[in-house]
Amino acid sequence: MAAGPQGPRLLVLGLLLCVLGLSVSQGRKLLLVPLDGSHWLSMHGVIRQLHQRGHDLVVLASVASVYITEGAFYTLKRYPAPFKREDLEASFISLGRAVFENQPFLQRVVKTYKKVKKDSALLLSICSHLLHNKELMTSLAEGNFDAVLTDPFLPCGPIVAQYLALPAVFSNALPCSLDFQGTQCPNPLSYVPRLLSFNTDGMTFLQRVENTLVALLENFLCSAVYSPYASLASEVLQKDVTVQDLLSSASIWLLRSDFVKNYPRPIMPNIVFIGGINCASQNPLSREFEAYINASGEHGIVVFSLGSMVSEIPEKKAMQIADALGTIPQTVLWRYTGPRPSNLAKNTILVKWLPQNDLLGHPMTRAFITHSGSHGIYEGICNGVPMVMMPLFADQMDNAKRMETRGAGVTLNVLEMTSEDLANALKTVISDKSYKENIMRLSSLHKDRPVEPLDLAVFWVEFVMRHKGAKHLRPAAHDLNWYQYHSLDVIGFLLAVVLGVVFIVCKCCVFGYRKCFGKKERAKKSHKSKVQ
Amino acid sequence: MAAGPQGPRLLVLGLLLCVLGLSVSQGRKLLLVPLDGSHWLSMHGVIRQLHQRGHDLVVLASVASVYITEGAFYTLKRYPAPFKREDLEASFISLGRAVFENQPFLQRVVKTYKKVKKDSALLLSICSHLLHNKELMTSLAEGNFDAVLTDPFLPCGPIVAQYLALPAVFSNALPCSLDFQGTQCPNPLSYVPRLLSFNTDGMTFLQRVENTLVALLENFLCSAVYSPYASLASEVLQKDVTVQDLLSSASIWLLRSDFVKNYPRPIMPNIVFIGGINCASQNPLSREFEAYINASGEHGIVVFSLGSMVSEIPEKKAMQIADALGTIPQTVLWRYTGPRPSNLAKNTILVKWLPQNDLLGHPMTRAFITHSGSHGIYEGICNGVPMVMMPLFADQMDNAKRMETRGAGVTLNVLEMTSEDLANALKTVISDKSYKENIMRLSSLHKDRPVEPLDLAVFWVEFVMRHKGAKHLRPAAHDLNWYQYHSLDVIGFLLAVVLGVVFIVCKCCVFGYRKCFGKKERAKKSHKSKVQ
Repeated sequence: MAAGPQGPRLLVLGLLLCVLGLSVSQGRKLLLVPLDGSHWLSMHGVIRQLHQRGHDLVVLASVASVYITEGAFYTLKRYPAPFKREDLEASFISLGRAVFENQPFLQRVVKTYKKVKKDSALLLSICSHLLHNKELMTSLAEGNFDAVLTDPFLPCGPIVAQYLALPAVFSNALPCSLDFQGTQCPNPLSYVPRLLSFNTDGMTFLQRVENTLVALLENFLCSAVYSPYASLASEVLQKDVTVQDLLSSASIWLLRSDFVKNYPRPIMPNIVFIGGINCASQNPLSREFEAYINASGEHGIVVFSLGSMVSEIPEKKAMQIADALGTIPQTVLWRYTGPRPSNLAKNTILVKWLPQNDLLGHPMTRAFITHSGSHGIYEGICNGVPMVMMPLFADQMDNAKRMETRGAGVTLNVLEMTSEDLANALKTVISDKSYKENIMRLSSLHKDRPVEPLDLAVFWVEFVMRHKGAKHLRPAAHDLNWYQYHSLDVIGFLLAVVLGVVFIVCKCCVFGYRKCFGKKERAKKSHKSKVQ
Repeated sequence: MAAGPQGPRLLVLGLLLCVLGLSVSQGRKLLLVPLDGSHWLSMHGVIRQLHQRGHDLVVLASVASVYITEGAFYTLKRYPAPFKREDLEASFISLGRAVFENQPFLQRVVKTYKKVKKDSALLLSICSHLLHNKELMTSLAEGNFDAVLTDPFLPCGPIVAQYLALPAVFSNALPCSLDFQGTQCPNPLSYVPRLLSFNTDGMTFLQRVENTLVALLENFLCSAVYSPYASLASEVLQKDVTVQDLLSSASIWLLRSDFVKNYPRPIMPNIVFIGGINCASQNPLSREFEAYINASGEHGIVVFSLGSMVSEIPEKKAMQIADALGTIPQTVLWRYTGPRPSNLAKNTILVKWLPQNDLLGHPMTRAFITHSGSHGIYEGICNGVPMVMMPLFADQMDNAKRMETRGAGVTLNVLEMTSEDLANALKTVISDKSYKENIMRLSSLHKDRPVEPLDLAVFWVEFVMRHKGAKHLRPAAHDLNWYQYHSLDVIGFLLAVVLGVVFIVCKCCVFGYRKCFGKKERAKKSHKSKVQ
């Protein structure tokens, strides 16, 4: 058949589409159920890439969402929430404030527990509102989605995926080793440090005891947050559902980790490590930041940010920090939205926002003051910048511990540190060459990989859409209960058999002995009695 | 500095080298310590690729080697052996013959044990000869190698690597779960079937008991083969070395497996799956084979090979097979070097060698009769060809079981099968469409991967050369003994503490009770006695 006069034009258009990677025929439909806050921000790279590859993305978010807003790469589907956006904002702000409250330990624990319970109830109520929104759920069921991409940190997405009978990709780790429970991944207590234990993988006997106790405790702590989701799921799905059922439903887990930041440990085939995914987007600096760097001279700059969730700190602490920053010759770019500390030195520039990864990638950047959130740590590693770490909450203490043990940074207790401590830490990581060498070594290991983490994440989301899940990666361990998994029934049975055999053999020996020697003994006795 | 008149020419040459990927400056030196036989043949793809990427490869082989010969991609370094090439050849031939001897079970076990012991002694003696060859070992020590790539199936290479203090990449799995012991990889008996147990990952209680017993037994069986290497290593390295020490020395393990052939299970970060690596080289068919296919008409062809190690079978069995092959309408291409069976039908063509992967890739290929070695299975999967499997030894029975449970083939017992069994099996896999559908589904899952297995293997070998190992992937479990690893000391300590606390609390209660009520009781008693 002749191509007709439009043939060459269509051919060129086809080639153009191929070159752009916009294979329209492969476009599939993905439902995103993200978690508000920094977790949502960290999904942007994957979302953009999936959109560019021709997929149709629908993002579910409540009207109270703070960070999840309209975007060019997806359709935002809002649903009503049982409270206002301001309530959620207040919750985020109070989270940031709480970490700077220097209270006695027990008071702190009680307050944290109350806050976690209050916030969880708030977020659970949004989830309940979503799942009971018949109209929305029906429209989603008719949406012909191929898969769900969700953050299981609060397992609302997994319930939505099960309700819609869609395969799910989970895009984050969970506390209390729930992610490893969900994947049936062995988690040896002897060398895998539990989060918040602040141990490394080389533990003394007492540290291993502590690690075991933390593991026992965390089950109780997480149960308070996660078990209400199991009840909600049971009600919505009209069958008995456990937290384990919800978490084991993932086809693929995308974890923001690797074995440069974390310690090597057992993994499962459906766990994909995408640590460092946020380093992918590196852009040229704006004129403003370029000018700051140029003005910093030979000493270069220090980048300072406590993450997207904490941009204000108490005035006294801010002044203490400002004092320390004034003692170093570098220019400090500090992301800070609070009132300007009165003692701020000339070398310190306050900014409402900073292009963290782009600044860290500049050769004049000498150090990075960070709250050691997973993203910041990876941006430090990717760009090979030594760190001064001020962990605030969640996994940040453990992240800091990992970097410190590798000689790539110094950790400070933000509540207890003095101005001098911070100044000394900064001078140490900048002047002691070993910090730069160590972070550069980590950087070269981290970046030496067969596939970029962003490509890996996109590949596996597409894989799940293409194959309607990844059943071939689901271990049969999910079909066993705990004593079967640990072979306790088999061990019991084999022990019973061995003991049974030993018992029968002993009985036979005794019987045989009596048969053989019993007569003689009786004969002897009767002989004796006759003699007497 | 000016470039001088030769500048442009050098520039062009440099660009040319870059385009060809022959970055001379990146060329490193790799020492290969392979195992003779089919294991060596399976390394060819990686070797060729490493050579093309500008690395300098030196292959160590004894003068008695059968399969390891001079090659264009490497320098062969021969060393004397304590026996002749003919002895090794005889050993290979007898291995092929032994599998067709239909003897009573016990006689078979004793014979196999004797053969394994004799062959291991033979191969151990080559290793000992190599390690005691002072001149050769000195020249290797002076060879400035960056790493060792070795097949640890018989752990001579690991000893060489330790002697030369070089990082090692292990290129094969091991029997008796020694590979998982070597990597400290959890290996739950409850759903990870042991080799030679012929179980799947979904086991009944009795199958799990069997799996546990096989695991207990295999330790004893493998100890006979592997412990002499520990003694040899201890002598050569002049320190106490265990088999575990030798196997845990690998930086990276390249395993010819994936989760399409094998069942999902825990893995470790330094295990890289390269199953299907042999499918990479697909070439056009020669005129001879193209002619066979063209002559086969609409029915197409069946490819039949029992692997590189078994090319002859007893006459009676060959005639039985020939009989069955004559009953199908397809043309059968049979790799067979033995005498032509007198009853060979017209549709069956005997060939001394066949381009297995290329033939399986032809759309007219209807079925594949294979001994279900790992390579054959992967070529069947890659090309989506249903299989009739006649496992002979080693992991072949388990490979066949895996394919059979996935509905991609039929397994036959080569000793017990009748001519009719084979004919029926062939007709089934060709006419029952489910076999084709299942193998095509497996094929699409297997081939849908972010990196090709050959590229992955090359990447990790180069990674180890670049970074002088992969220490960041070595789990801290290697530094624990068995009871520490399983936290038995911690559990014992915590139990002791709990029991101690319970004991003290009980004692206190008893003491308190006596203090409070003892007097009253005594008073009561004395009152009673007075009354009496």
